[in-house]
Amino acid sequence: MAERAALEELVRLQGERVRGLKQQKASAEQIEEEVAKLLKLKAQLGPDEGKQKFVLKTPKGTRDYSPRQMAVREKVFDVIISCFKRHGAEVIDTPVFELKDFDIAGQFDPMIPDAECLEIMCEILRSLQIGDFLVKVNDRRILDGMFAICGVPDSKFRTICSSVDKLDKVSWEEVKNEMVGEKGLAPEVADHIGDYVQQHGGISLVEQLLQDPELSQNKQALEGLGDLKLLFEYLTLFGIADKISFDLSLARGLDYYTGVIYEAVLLQTPVQAGEEPLGVGSVAAGGRYDGLVGMFDPKGRKVPCVGLSIGVERIFSIVEQRLEATEEKVRTTETQVLVASAQKKLLEERLKLVSELWNAGIKAELLYKKNPKLLNQLQYCEEAGIPLVAIIGEQELKDGVIKLRSVASREEVDVPREDLVEEIKRRTSQPFCIC
Amino acid sequence: MAERAALEELVRLQGERVRGLKQQKASAEQIEEEVAKLLKLKAQLGPDEGKQKFVLKTPKGTRDYSPRQMAVREKVFDVIISCFKRHGAEVIDTPVFELKDFDIAGQFDPMIPDAECLEIMCEILRSLQIGDFLVKVNDRRILDGMFAICGVPDSKFRTICSSVDKLDKVSWEEVKNEMVGEKGLAPEVADHIGDYVQQHGGISLVEQLLQDPELSQNKQALEGLGDLKLLFEYLTLFGIADKISFDLSLARGLDYYTGVIYEAVLLQTPVQAGEEPLGVGSVAAGGRYDGLVGMFDPKGRKVPCVGLSIGVERIFSIVEQRLEATEEKVRTTETQVLVASAQKKLLEERLKLVSELWNAGIKAELLYKKNPKLLNQLQYCEEAGIPLVAIIGEQELKDGVIKLRSVASREEVDVPREDLVEEIKRRTSQPFCIC
Repeated sequence: MAERAALEELVRLQGERVRGLKQQKASAEQIEEEVAKLLKLKAQLGPDEGKQKFVLKTPKGTRDYSPRQMAVREKVFDVIISCFKRHGAEVIDTPVFELKDFDIAGQFDPMIPDAECLEIMCEILRSLQIGDFLVKVNDRRILDGMFAICGVPDSKFRTICSSVDKLDKVSWEEVKNEMVGEKGLAPEVADHIGDYVQQHGGISLVEQLLQDPELSQNKQALEGLGDLKLLFEYLTLFGIADKISFDLSLARGLDYYTGVIYEAVLLQTPVQAGEEPLGVGSVAAGGRYDGLVGMFDPKGRKVPCVGLSIGVERIFSIVEQRLEATEEKVRTTETQVLVASAQKKLLEERLKLVSELWNAGIKAELLYKKNPKLLNQLQYCEEAGIPLVAIIGEQELKDGVIKLRSVASREEVDVPREDLVEEIKRRTSQPFCIC
Repeated sequence: MAERAALEELVRLQGERVRGLKQQKASAEQIEEEVAKLLKLKAQLGPDEGKQKFVLKTPKGTRDYSPRQMAVREKVFDVIISCFKRHGAEVIDTPVFELKDFDIAGQFDPMIPDAECLEIMCEILRSLQIGDFLVKVNDRRILDGMFAICGVPDSKFRTICSSVDKLDKVSWEEVKNEMVGEKGLAPEVADHIGDYVQQHGGISLVEQLLQDPELSQNKQALEGLGDLKLLFEYLTLFGIADKISFDLSLARGLDYYTGVIYEAVLLQTPVQAGEEPLGVGSVAAGGRYDGLVGMFDPKGRKVPCVGLSIGVERIFSIVEQRLEATEEKVRTTETQVLVASAQKKLLEERLKLVSELWNAGIKAELLYKKNPKLLNQLQYCEEAGIPLVAIIGEQELKDGVIKLRSVASREEVDVPREDLVEEIKRRTSQPFCIC
């Protein structure tokens, strides 16, 4: 297995070398020769075993992402995965999760799973701390009912839908022009649609539209509004109703949604003043698409489905841009303490202590030098962002204590060796933070 | 984004349908038709965005692995990743990790990183609880020196190496026959090699060979033995020397290793009596290959490298086979508590309580039914392996308590609502276990 690790390392390095030569505009022959070497190595490597191995290596290979980027990605994934798990989701195959299996849990009553999806969305966006957000909610049936009562021909539902969906980017006038000019809708029909789709609000708007003389006559719209009312009641119990906006212009592109639809948008770009603003748009979306699965059911049964997806790549870039803007330092390791020595000839003591800490579950490092200078060890902590240093010296050994130093405050205290693990745990048990 | 989630779901389901039809030996036309549908959907799906999204969905899709298999994989990965992090490793790109960066930490002294690699190997195998193991250790330089003093021509080093490497599978006689018969080695040379490669032991064997009149005259062998002695001293300080066996027959296939090499093997198959034993072999391996990287260094510098890799696929199958043998139940979710109700008309109370628990970081579920039967809720816990049930009833609401039930013992206690979170945390804070 290690053969493979080393070969992979070779392939990476040779690839790097080839890229380097190309950048240096080396001679074609030279590059060809190195490429040949690379291909030969790749051949030796054989079929990629992909995730079959974990590899730990000490030299730097070429990377897709910087350690900083990897750390950000890891933390974002942590937030999302732990939220899914908090809701009893089952890993199908990362990044796909599944909620309760309907065989055990049986049938469900309206809007309860839908409410949980919105709760999950809000929990994730809240814990990511990427700025204030709003989740727009609408229902396919309300849109269709509205189009029907406004007199949009069935054949035009879909295309008018996509015009309405643009209202978050362009003005109503532009949307109307598209509907009338390009899509041949009668102006009064367009205006009628306009009266509806420019409205947004909370449960009160739902209740108001339930009284709407026209909409309330449409069976589909009535169903949709009834479900939205129920949904808002559940979201109020979850304490997230203030994050949800019933927005009649939310249409979403495709037309396979059969019920409630939602889309989360950041209200402000999280970058600092002076930064050029970041085009954010939606960072999560989902909805109900009961029809779809039934479509492939041999007996044509409708299988109820709600789906929710998180735009992690967009979230990565937001977090990264914010970190650059604020020049916050991102740790790329989780080491809690460096085991250091104040004098020479203490390597054995350092090795004994660090393995004590490892066995107690503490994340600990030591420098690989036999007799490192204390200054270098402290500097390493500064560079790597390690918060604590456990310093061993002749005197400490005599007294049966370890000098525990806080890198930030530079304050040092002698801790009885038997209390060291607890003291390190106590000092490093901070709540999770994205940065 | 949700469009894509739904489309992926469609593609999965259509794929399943096609496979189903093939199994049912449906007519070629019918299959063709369904395949066409599948391809059309895939086309709509466009380029795979891969890890760009997290998707949460409620219906079952087709899976590469069963939820049980996924759970096992996740737990194995958890053990490995947390061990790497405990040692300050940095994620390069899972599953590749890197120890300290050589820029900050500076040069290293012999055998310290090598000792940490072996410590990491032992920690991982220990925490995986897949049975007793042994790590065979040898050094390339000792092998080369041994071949030299035994009179193996340089040109035959590599091929004789691979014969020696077979000693863990076949008898010395067979290895000797291969050396002499197939590879044209003089019988006395083979016997001389045999005297060495059939030896294995601890630091005492290293010291004994340091006194060996022949080996001690070979510069390479002497270097290798000196380093192994140092390595064993460090491993003793780490308290893992008893897990390490200096084995002169360990040669490893390829010849890029430049120093110490190691390979971990399970000493017994972890399956139960009566099970047919599992061919285990090595589950982790590594070594030092300083030459390799330097080979591509423009200035031809030797970059020091140690590598270590874990055979996770093999470990998965061992854990899975053991679980099947012992019929242990594997949880596929981490839910700590189900929020249940004893009477009808308590959905609102269940929703309020479950969101309280989510916000407190508790992994909690509720059934999606408005008025589920208590029996069904308890049965769901049994099936899903959820250890606790928080039961709300009219009386509990009046008394400001929650009835907390242990699914295993069926014992119930009334817990003041304000103490519920702490009580659940207390009862579910078990140490990690692979199963």
